[in-house]
Amino acid sequence: MSNRTILLNSRPVGMPTANDFKFVEQELAGIQPGEILLKTRYVSVDPYLRGRMSDAKSYVAPFELDKPINSGVVAEVIESQNDQYSPGDWVIGALDWSEMQISNGKGLNKIDTQLASPSAYLGVLGMTGLTAYFGLGEIGRPKEGETVVVSGAAGAVGSIVGQIAKIKGARVIGIAGNDEKVQLLKSEFGYDEAINYNSTEDMPAAIAAAAPNGVDVYFDNVGGEISDAVYINLNKFGRIAVCGSIAVYNETERPVGPRIEPIIVKNSILMQGFIVSNYAEKFPEGVQQLSQWVNNGSLKHVETIIEGFDNIPKAFIDLFSGANKGKMIVKVD
Amino acid sequence: MSNRTILLNSRPVGMPTANDFKFVEQELAGIQPGEILLKTRYVSVDPYLRGRMSDAKSYVAPFELDKPINSGVVAEVIESQNDQYSPGDWVIGALDWSEMQISNGKGLNKIDTQLASPSAYLGVLGMTGLTAYFGLGEIGRPKEGETVVVSGAAGAVGSIVGQIAKIKGARVIGIAGNDEKVQLLKSEFGYDEAINYNSTEDMPAAIAAAAPNGVDVYFDNVGGEISDAVYINLNKFGRIAVCGSIAVYNETERPVGPRIEPIIVKNSILMQGFIVSNYAEKFPEGVQQLSQWVNNGSLKHVETIIEGFDNIPKAFIDLFSGANKGKMIVKVD
Repeated sequence: MSNRTILLNSRPVGMPTANDFKFVEQELAGIQPGEILLKTRYVSVDPYLRGRMSDAKSYVAPFELDKPINSGVVAEVIESQNDQYSPGDWVIGALDWSEMQISNGKGLNKIDTQLASPSAYLGVLGMTGLTAYFGLGEIGRPKEGETVVVSGAAGAVGSIVGQIAKIKGARVIGIAGNDEKVQLLKSEFGYDEAINYNSTEDMPAAIAAAAPNGVDVYFDNVGGEISDAVYINLNKFGRIAVCGSIAVYNETERPVGPRIEPIIVKNSILMQGFIVSNYAEKFPEGVQQLSQWVNNGSLKHVETIIEGFDNIPKAFIDLFSGANKGKMIVKVD
Repeated sequence: MSNRTILLNSRPVGMPTANDFKFVEQELAGIQPGEILLKTRYVSVDPYLRGRMSDAKSYVAPFELDKPINSGVVAEVIESQNDQYSPGDWVIGALDWSEMQISNGKGLNKIDTQLASPSAYLGVLGMTGLTAYFGLGEIGRPKEGETVVVSGAAGAVGSIVGQIAKIKGARVIGIAGNDEKVQLLKSEFGYDEAINYNSTEDMPAAIAAAAPNGVDVYFDNVGGEISDAVYINLNKFGRIAVCGSIAVYNETERPVGPRIEPIIVKNSILMQGFIVSNYAEKFPEGVQQLSQWVNNGSLKHVETIIEGFDNIPKAFIDLFSGANKGKMIVKVD
C-alpha cells in the first residue's frame, strides 16, 4: 500500500519555505497484532512547530532532519488488530504528517464526532482552546470590569481568549493585522475594541485610546513591537500571559527591543510564560468548561480549513503572514 | 534655631551629580501643641530614590524641585508637645534630609535601640530586609536544593537575599562588581559561588559553570547585561523577582537589550516586579522572622556607614558605582 509522508528536508533559516519540506512515498507494511491502520483526516498546523524545526533546545524535542513532521492529527481507524479500536473509530493524537500510518494506539484518544465536528477537537476543544483557557484563567486572571488586551486576536488562540475574557466580564481589546480581522473581532467574537496594527501609526496611543483605564491583562501571542506598545499601557499589578512570540520566531538574529524590566518593577507587573501541558492535570476541567460554553453558544469557534494533504506545508507557512482566521486546519480526504 | 536642609536642585540627567542637590539654611519655628522636634541621626540612601528625582510617573510621587528630599530616617525626639513622644525617644519614618525638623508624629514609629542598633531599623529590620524577605519568599520561592542567583549580591538587599536563600537550603550564587565584594559574599554571607562581573569576560558561561544544574530563581537588583546573562541559564519554571534595575536607572535613552519573551515562553518562566509596600499587610510577620534570624546569628548584616550630613548626596551618588557593601547609611551627629 503506497503512502505519502512529509519529512523535514532542512531546518528553516528565517521564514520557512516549501523547500524545507520533502514529500516522500513509502510502502506501508501490513499491521501486526496490537496495531491499527490510520487514515489522516484533519491536520493541525501551529506556530509552535516552527520552534521544533530548529535544533535549539526548547520545551519539546526538535524534529529530526529527514524524519516525518508530526502535530495534532485527527485520523480514522481503517483496520484494527487492537481490541481497543475498531474500523470507523475516529482518534486524535500527535501523529505524523502521513496520509496513512500504523500505530499501536498509545497516546491516542477516541473522539465523538457526533458531539462536535472532528476539527473542533484540534481547536476549541483541543490544545488551542485549552491554551486560551489556562493562559487567561491561571495567569491573566481578569476580574470583572478590568481591561484585557489580546495580540494575535483573530488567531486560533486569540479568538478564544477574547471571548473567554468577555464571559468573565472584562473590557476586551484585540490587535490583529488587517481590517477584515478587525471587523471579525467585533462582529463575531464580541471584542469591545479592535486595532489593525498594520494601518495604525502610533500603536501606544491607539492602545491608550482603546483602554482609557489602562491595561490590566495582556495575553500575548506575538511579541515584538506590538508587545512594546502594550507594555507601556499596563496598570499597576498588570499580568502578562506570554503564550507565543510569532513575530520573532523567524528571526535569524536574537531579537532586540526596549528593556521591559523597568516597567516590570515600576508597576509590579507579573509576566509568565507557559505551554498548555503545564496544566495537563486540569485538562478535564478545561474541556468540560469549553464544551459547555460552545454548547450554550457563548463561545464561537472559527476555523480556516485548507483542503488537501499537499497543502500542509503551505498552510503552516501561511500562519506567519496571518492568512488564517481562527484555527488553521488542513482537511485531508 | 538654624538648620540645614538638602533640596532637589535639578532633576538628574543620567548619573546624578552634586549639583543636583542644594544645601539651604533655614530658621526653624518653635513647636506647636501636638508637634515634636526631631534631630536626624541616621539617613538611608537607596537606589529607588533616583526614580523619584525624575518626573516620570512611577510607583511613588516624584520629588519636587527646590523642595526637600526625603527617605528613611532615624531621628531622636528633642522636644515634644505630643503625648505619644517624649524627648529621648528614637523614631523611624520617611523624613526630610534636614538636620532638624518638626513633625506631628504621624507615620513615625518608635524604635527600641536596646534591641538592635538604630541603623538596623533602616536596613535588615527595615525596608531593606523586608524587600529581601518578601521578594524572595513570595516571588522567588526557592525550594531546598534549587539554585538561586542574586545580582547586586553585596548590596543592601542582595546581601540579605543570599543569606535567606541559604537558610531555605538553596545553592546560592552572587554577582558583584569587585573582588573584595566577591570575597565578602563567600566569607561573610555564605554564598556558594560568587562572580565578579567586571573581571569576567563571558558572564553566561561563568553563570553556567557556577550553576551546573541551571538557575531556578533569579533575584535581580541590577538589570541590564548581567540579567541577560542569567536569563539564558534559567531552568524550566524559573522565577525572576525583579527588585530593581540600578544598571539602567541613569540611562537617558530607553535602554535596549535582547528580548526576553522567547525565553519566558520556552521555559515557562515567571517574572514579577514588586516594591516592598505590596506586602505591607505582612510586615509584622517579616520583621519577626528577620529579627529571629538576626538574633540567632543566621542572618548577618553589613553596613557601609558614611559620617556627616554634608555627605548625604555623595553617599547616594556612590550607590551607582557600587561603593557600598551592604546597606549604605549616613550617620549624622
